[in-house]
Amino acid sequence: MRLVDIMPGAVGRRLESVDAASVGTALQTATIAVVGATGAVGLEVLALLVELGVEPARIRAIASASSVGSIVRSGGRDHEIRGLGEALEAEVAILATPAEVSRRIAPELIDAGVLVSDNSSAFRDEAPLIIPEWNPEAVRRGDRLVASPNCTTTIAVTGIAPLLATRPPISLEIVSYQAISGAGMPALHAILEESRDLLAGDAPSPRWRHHPVAFNAFPHESSLDPVSGACGEERKFVQEAGRLLRLPSASLAATCLRIPVLRTHTVAVRLRLPEACSVEMVRTRLASAPGVRLVEDGPTSHQATARAGVLVGRIRVESSTEGAGSLVRAVVAGDQLLKGAAWNALQNAALLVSATGCSRRR
Amino acid sequence: MRLVDIMPGAVGRRLESVDAASVGTALQTATIAVVGATGAVGLEVLALLVELGVEPARIRAIASASSVGSIVRSGGRDHEIRGLGEALEAEVAILATPAEVSRRIAPELIDAGVLVSDNSSAFRDEAPLIIPEWNPEAVRRGDRLVASPNCTTTIAVTGIAPLLATRPPISLEIVSYQAISGAGMPALHAILEESRDLLAGDAPSPRWRHHPVAFNAFPHESSLDPVSGACGEERKFVQEAGRLLRLPSASLAATCLRIPVLRTHTVAVRLRLPEACSVEMVRTRLASAPGVRLVEDGPTSHQATARAGVLVGRIRVESSTEGAGSLVRAVVAGDQLLKGAAWNALQNAALLVSATGCSRRR
Repeated sequence: MRLVDIMPGAVGRRLESVDAASVGTALQTATIAVVGATGAVGLEVLALLVELGVEPARIRAIASASSVGSIVRSGGRDHEIRGLGEALEAEVAILATPAEVSRRIAPELIDAGVLVSDNSSAFRDEAPLIIPEWNPEAVRRGDRLVASPNCTTTIAVTGIAPLLATRPPISLEIVSYQAISGAGMPALHAILEESRDLLAGDAPSPRWRHHPVAFNAFPHESSLDPVSGACGEERKFVQEAGRLLRLPSASLAATCLRIPVLRTHTVAVRLRLPEACSVEMVRTRLASAPGVRLVEDGPTSHQATARAGVLVGRIRVESSTEGAGSLVRAVVAGDQLLKGAAWNALQNAALLVSATGCSRRR
Repeated sequence: MRLVDIMPGAVGRRLESVDAASVGTALQTATIAVVGATGAVGLEVLALLVELGVEPARIRAIASASSVGSIVRSGGRDHEIRGLGEALEAEVAILATPAEVSRRIAPELIDAGVLVSDNSSAFRDEAPLIIPEWNPEAVRRGDRLVASPNCTTTIAVTGIAPLLATRPPISLEIVSYQAISGAGMPALHAILEESRDLLAGDAPSPRWRHHPVAFNAFPHESSLDPVSGACGEERKFVQEAGRLLRLPSASLAATCLRIPVLRTHTVAVRLRLPEACSVEMVRTRLASAPGVRLVEDGPTSHQATARAGVLVGRIRVESSTEGAGSLVRAVVAGDQLLKGAAWNALQNAALLVSATGCSRRR
């Protein structure tokens, strides 16, 4: 693994571990606008579209006015940045934009007949909130907007989804190890520069947070709620996993830290199931699940980086002696720019196209 | 923070955050052998002795025959390496040695009248297992050997000890973020070299594990138990925390990963207490506890690095609606070379000297 291969948009083999055929088929004939194309997630959406074999003429890389006319390279191909107006003429828009931008532009896109797959938090409470490995049926015919959960929730729920086939769980608690690139390109560049400083013997001058992030683990930077003491990332997990799994917030908990890893969030999960369970049962269900790979020696961040699917390992099961219920512990690792963002958004776009159809297809 | 300040033995201010006076007083007139003085923990023991103000003439740096006569620099002072024979003439020996070495040499040292504070796992089942902030009374008059728990257990239990004043807890579960230097100097040098490779654009050739450790999070390298699925580090926590807190193994659990941090283990703790509790009560107890510092903005690895005490932050409390019991979540960070090893071993040596006295003091 070289640095150049880790950077968003690098040529890679993102789709090796997932079933990309259905997504490719659904999106093959659509015109697709990638809004926020210069960001870490936007670059990955472009690279995935190239890997899916979508014709260049059908891809529109959209960013803010200041970038229009510039070129971004992603998936081994140059993409000219265009203005938002061109998104209104696409059939599908992937929004890799901050929530306030999504909130502003999504209604306009929908009015123009564009199907919208949003990656931000803007519509997670109101639109169908979808992880295709978990609740694809929640996309209904006629839907024009779907939302993806935040990256940590998506990775954790994808990893445990195969274990929830029969009944909803009793509780899900996570402890996260989150990559720096989850905070975007400036944070990614900051850790690289700070690491160079430190290795050269200098004290790194903090370039992203008020403290250095190089070789440092620290609580997630989102703001703390003064009452609960939970940070924004933890509250998102409780709210979004609650909606996805139909669980009350008291059955969910998260502790979120960032670690000095460039890509891939790792999540230690503690899942209480209503049924008795064994390690063998967990392994069997994971082994045959789409988008999930069971690993014996791992998961490591490097193993999961630049792969669309998630990795699960370190499985341990405690069954209650009374035979009622079981406690499953595992470690899930997933590239938060891919399954945690770009790939889930593309999968969701494919579900929208399949459910609703491209009304303006010419 | 510069790299040179992070390396074991660097001149620092290790004792700022702890009550060092009692340890200094107890050890002030003893002759102290530091066995394993060329390793990461041994270098820290030497530096702590310098910071405690122990006279150079009373410190003996001991290592294997191949190192005898060489000089190590630690705490801003040069220490000549001597052979094991000289440890037999000391009054106190700090063993910063692998378990098999401790097992071999401790009986010989005890026979020679030396008080032994061992940092390895060799005697954790049979000798008093001590964290001075938790169970100092377990060192009894006449004891000649005490053991320190493993680093992760020591840091976690020190962080929660102030909350256990009234009754033992119902359960304690941890998820760890463990520093590379916990695996010793070769691992520490490996991550530095691999990080340089990656930042230079090259694929790092793995120098310590079969995979690179630079910018990588991965399950702890200790061997997996085929039945429970737990790694050695996790089993140590269950066994040692069980002994310390008098809890059955079913009430304890751990998930241990390493992260690309040079020093300091961070531990997310999930502590169930039998009594109702509030965030304010937790904060009050932590604020007045020795060896623990409550932090508002953190804890980060850098904050805890090179400090003898542990930092606690991110406190959240769920009280049962029936008023019976509470669930405390917090994040504890501690330098595993100091509180997790060298400092705890020195504190334990001081307890031994206070309890038993140096029988051969001249």
